[in-house]
Amino acid sequence: MKEQMTPLEELRHSSAHVLATAVLRLFPEAQLDIGPPTDTGFYYDFDLDHKFTAEDLEKIEAEMKRVIKENQRFEKQEVSREEAIQMIKDFGQETYKLGRLEDIPEGDAISFYRNGEFLDLCAGTHVNYTKKIKAFKLLSIAGAYHRGDSKNKQLQRIYGTAFQTKEELAEYLEMLEEAKKRDHRRIGKDMKLFSFDAEQVGPGLPLWLPNGTVLIEELEKLAKETEFKAGYDRVRTPHVGKESLYLTSGHLPYYEESMYPAMEFEEDAGGEKVRYFLKAMNCPHHHKIYAASPRSYRDLPLRLTEYGTCYRYEQSGELMGLMRVRSMQMNDAHIYCTEDQFEEEFNAVNEMYLKYFKLFGLEKYLMRFSTHDPSKLGDKYVDNAELWIQTEDMVRQVLKSSGINYVEVPNEAAFYGPKIDVQVWSAIGREFTIATNQVDFAVPARFGLEYTASDNSKQTPLCIHRAPLGTHERFIGFLIEHFGGNFPTWLAPEQVRILPISDKIADYAKRVLAELRSNGVRATADLNAEKLGAKIRRAELDKIPNTLIVGAKEAEEEKVSVRSRFDGDRGAMSLEEFKGDILDTIQSRKLQIKTKD
Amino acid sequence: MKEQMTPLEELRHSSAHVLATAVLRLFPEAQLDIGPPTDTGFYYDFDLDHKFTAEDLEKIEAEMKRVIKENQRFEKQEVSREEAIQMIKDFGQETYKLGRLEDIPEGDAISFYRNGEFLDLCAGTHVNYTKKIKAFKLLSIAGAYHRGDSKNKQLQRIYGTAFQTKEELAEYLEMLEEAKKRDHRRIGKDMKLFSFDAEQVGPGLPLWLPNGTVLIEELEKLAKETEFKAGYDRVRTPHVGKESLYLTSGHLPYYEESMYPAMEFEEDAGGEKVRYFLKAMNCPHHHKIYAASPRSYRDLPLRLTEYGTCYRYEQSGELMGLMRVRSMQMNDAHIYCTEDQFEEEFNAVNEMYLKYFKLFGLEKYLMRFSTHDPSKLGDKYVDNAELWIQTEDMVRQVLKSSGINYVEVPNEAAFYGPKIDVQVWSAIGREFTIATNQVDFAVPARFGLEYTASDNSKQTPLCIHRAPLGTHERFIGFLIEHFGGNFPTWLAPEQVRILPISDKIADYAKRVLAELRSNGVRATADLNAEKLGAKIRRAELDKIPNTLIVGAKEAEEEKVSVRSRFDGDRGAMSLEEFKGDILDTIQSRKLQIKTKD
Repeated sequence: MKEQMTPLEELRHSSAHVLATAVLRLFPEAQLDIGPPTDTGFYYDFDLDHKFTAEDLEKIEAEMKRVIKENQRFEKQEVSREEAIQMIKDFGQETYKLGRLEDIPEGDAISFYRNGEFLDLCAGTHVNYTKKIKAFKLLSIAGAYHRGDSKNKQLQRIYGTAFQTKEELAEYLEMLEEAKKRDHRRIGKDMKLFSFDAEQVGPGLPLWLPNGTVLIEELEKLAKETEFKAGYDRVRTPHVGKESLYLTSGHLPYYEESMYPAMEFEEDAGGEKVRYFLKAMNCPHHHKIYAASPRSYRDLPLRLTEYGTCYRYEQSGELMGLMRVRSMQMNDAHIYCTEDQFEEEFNAVNEMYLKYFKLFGLEKYLMRFSTHDPSKLGDKYVDNAELWIQTEDMVRQVLKSSGINYVEVPNEAAFYGPKIDVQVWSAIGREFTIATNQVDFAVPARFGLEYTASDNSKQTPLCIHRAPLGTHERFIGFLIEHFGGNFPTWLAPEQVRILPISDKIADYAKRVLAELRSNGVRATADLNAEKLGAKIRRAELDKIPNTLIVGAKEAEEEKVSVRSRFDGDRGAMSLEEFKGDILDTIQSRKLQIKTKD
Repeated sequence: MKEQMTPLEELRHSSAHVLATAVLRLFPEAQLDIGPPTDTGFYYDFDLDHKFTAEDLEKIEAEMKRVIKENQRFEKQEVSREEAIQMIKDFGQETYKLGRLEDIPEGDAISFYRNGEFLDLCAGTHVNYTKKIKAFKLLSIAGAYHRGDSKNKQLQRIYGTAFQTKEELAEYLEMLEEAKKRDHRRIGKDMKLFSFDAEQVGPGLPLWLPNGTVLIEELEKLAKETEFKAGYDRVRTPHVGKESLYLTSGHLPYYEESMYPAMEFEEDAGGEKVRYFLKAMNCPHHHKIYAASPRSYRDLPLRLTEYGTCYRYEQSGELMGLMRVRSMQMNDAHIYCTEDQFEEEFNAVNEMYLKYFKLFGLEKYLMRFSTHDPSKLGDKYVDNAELWIQTEDMVRQVLKSSGINYVEVPNEAAFYGPKIDVQVWSAIGREFTIATNQVDFAVPARFGLEYTASDNSKQTPLCIHRAPLGTHERFIGFLIEHFGGNFPTWLAPEQVRILPISDKIADYAKRVLAELRSNGVRATADLNAEKLGAKIRRAELDKIPNTLIVGAKEAEEEKVSVRSRFDGDRGAMSLEEFKGDILDTIQSRKLQIKTKD
């Protein structure tokens, strides 16, 4: 736990103690593990034979309110290790707390926090009095292994949240409510975007249904256009590689646990055994393409990009809809450049991120710039102090001068260079990490990549790894929540639905349909023999961005009556006018967004 | 060997005997295996310690001419098995001929053919006299395992060809010469289209370099547009599936040898072992997508299409450039339809093939319609006589009424239905099989696929498997030869190269470049400080379809001087005019073809 918490963290940490206080009042036999604040609230882990129910949560919440009303004071007490052991025993919390005490290194301060009758081994910090907790709510119960290890006992975790004001809490709870409605698994099913077949295809391997495939392919088209303009070269590489490829890259043996196991066999009759792996990343293949031709400084920067599908073996317990999958389609590129070119290239990558954010209406973002720790060179980080400092300076310089919103996080870089993780917030305010951008000054050398410099010397290029849309699975999961399934026209699986008022208008409806489809618009016509009202309702349920109602009058005047999911009733317009309008909306990728359904 | 050969086959078969006659005169210790005619000539396999050289071929050819001049008569002699053994021994050819004799089933006729001093176990047939062989040529020597089995001894195969007339032979040899120049492996390397890294990536797994990736992605774009217009729905599926998927489809265990070996592991800690396979075909995944939603007759036909990459384990000895690979990108679709819809759907598929042929300038094609053999129902073919007859009738009807060029080949259907293999001839007259189209009335039932018919009964759909461009690897290999690397503008990796006459024109060259690229044209500018002549030569070597020469006059008048690889010097035109012209050439996918470089 950090020494100094923010006021909000203190509040949430104190709420966790109050939660444990209340639980012990109601269930004195409970053994406590830990109860930290989180980015969105707090939790506490309990070991208790009785399974907590929703009713228990209400009771516990009521008891917490009592503890708060008692306005207990949080008091810190520093003690020796022997005293600490005695205090834990006296308080009857030996099961986990003694182990937690052992985690504190010899010589470090040991402290307890006391509030009322409650006592907890705790480095702090806390608010002064329980009455400071003015707005909190218990949210859910989940199983959690002690120390996150599935070999240990599973404890019961109670999640809650707390804010400084009742208004902020209400806003947060409303966001959670909206997020539930926008759950990508639910919308994905309703809108037939994707499906899983764990039994025969495999868990975590989405089957993209036609509607979901439109989303992926529109993103792919967007990236292809953007990258063509930015001077990238597209490549394609197989989904497998030999063991020796990953030994060279350094992914094996360290990363083997996160990869599907090898396909092992004799390549030729009587030959040696070889091991093939499904690729978990595209970089080694791209390095091979770099190496396929001799390169001179004139060829750099070389920007190789691919829609590569990678496979990573996530534990099945960690799989979650599209947010945690085993097959990952990535708009992935590697930029090989000289040190002189780095600043410009890195800046261009960031600019591309910002362009994407704007296009998708992501108003809030944060780049987390992770740097190395000089004391861990040669251990956690490639041992080249000079290059670390130089590269980080270059990155920092670009971030500062381009006015990008970023924070610097020490000691979280990748092994081979500094990295930037990109956080974005959805339209309803939830945070997602969607992309990374890494500088690699180590692996190109492992592959013997080089270029002939202008002085004829052989040099190793720097490599920027970047994937601004992250994996498409995760990004689409995010977009589903962000748009609540109300995809803007350019992205929508079905862009236009034509609703003839009666059978007599079917011919005209088909003509409108043919006209739109021949222009590449994803249009359909609802020719079912139903009342118009039923057709309109179905189009709404299907979240169709544009519906065209056509009756006798429209047919006669070659018009369509337009209803937009974003702008409401737009009245009648000529088919020509509508066609021009929608083609423009699609080609310009116009941002259309509904914050509420 | 077939009982009745065509006259050309007889001629070639007789040439093979004459070849063996000549070899035995020059190398009496040679042991003969077999010498059949082929589609393009003939060969004979010899076992001989001495390694044949190019000089030997000349000597053998000269000796063959002598044998022909002697005008030996081909005489057939039917004998008993005992006599045959004795004749083989007397002729000193026990090593392989006795084994070949054993292949002849008891009761079948055994015959020899004699010409001059030469004698061969042979079912025939032959020309009457050696003088009938008026135009032949020995072509090459290659290793070939006895009976094609790498466990057997490797023999020396001499290839040759023969035609009825000297003119036809000359034409064929010229075609071979041109084909050598157009060898896709050579052009692929020169034009930086693809590369292999057998050691670290794996044999037969192409790495598509930027120029080759353009070819694939243009084909992909073409197929996407074509299929959107034809009402297909795009899907995306993972590259792996569980063993049970392939047991259901019936690919396992029968097809296992042609698949990469399994990835075997415990899906969950302490769980059962599961086996995942790289997919060798897309159909099982598409069947799963069909099954993901309930289907009614109103949803049919359902045309699911995907750019799926499949992996097949070809023996490494069989790998050959792009023509025989282990990773296959396929423009693959499965059409699920009712029996009533079959004819229309099948016809539409054929129409699509013809449209593609026209686009690529493939003037000669042949569809081989493979049907079942009623005597093998339940064994080689799904046991449903009625459905076989009905489906084949439907297919035959479509082929006939649409005037498609086809031949019917009995007893070569797929297990689950009739199939059509499509043969095309390249611009220099070489034949390739590029695509198949199959009707499947068995596998949908294995997956329990069904739809609710209009009478509310549950029915099983028919499934048409189709891939009009085959695998992209093979198709691009074919296109490289067909176009000789002179890709039409819409397909060319680099569509336009701008050649400024001097440094002073660099700014204007860049402006032309920016103008074209912002319109999506794959243009570059050659800004090297070289003489114009050198730049022009390089553009020619790189087979650039359009080069723009710009000097002071062009810069001043906002013009470009256009040289087309297909139409030669087109003179100066305004930049606007050229832009309109090239965008039209690209968008209409104008056919541009050079039969000679």
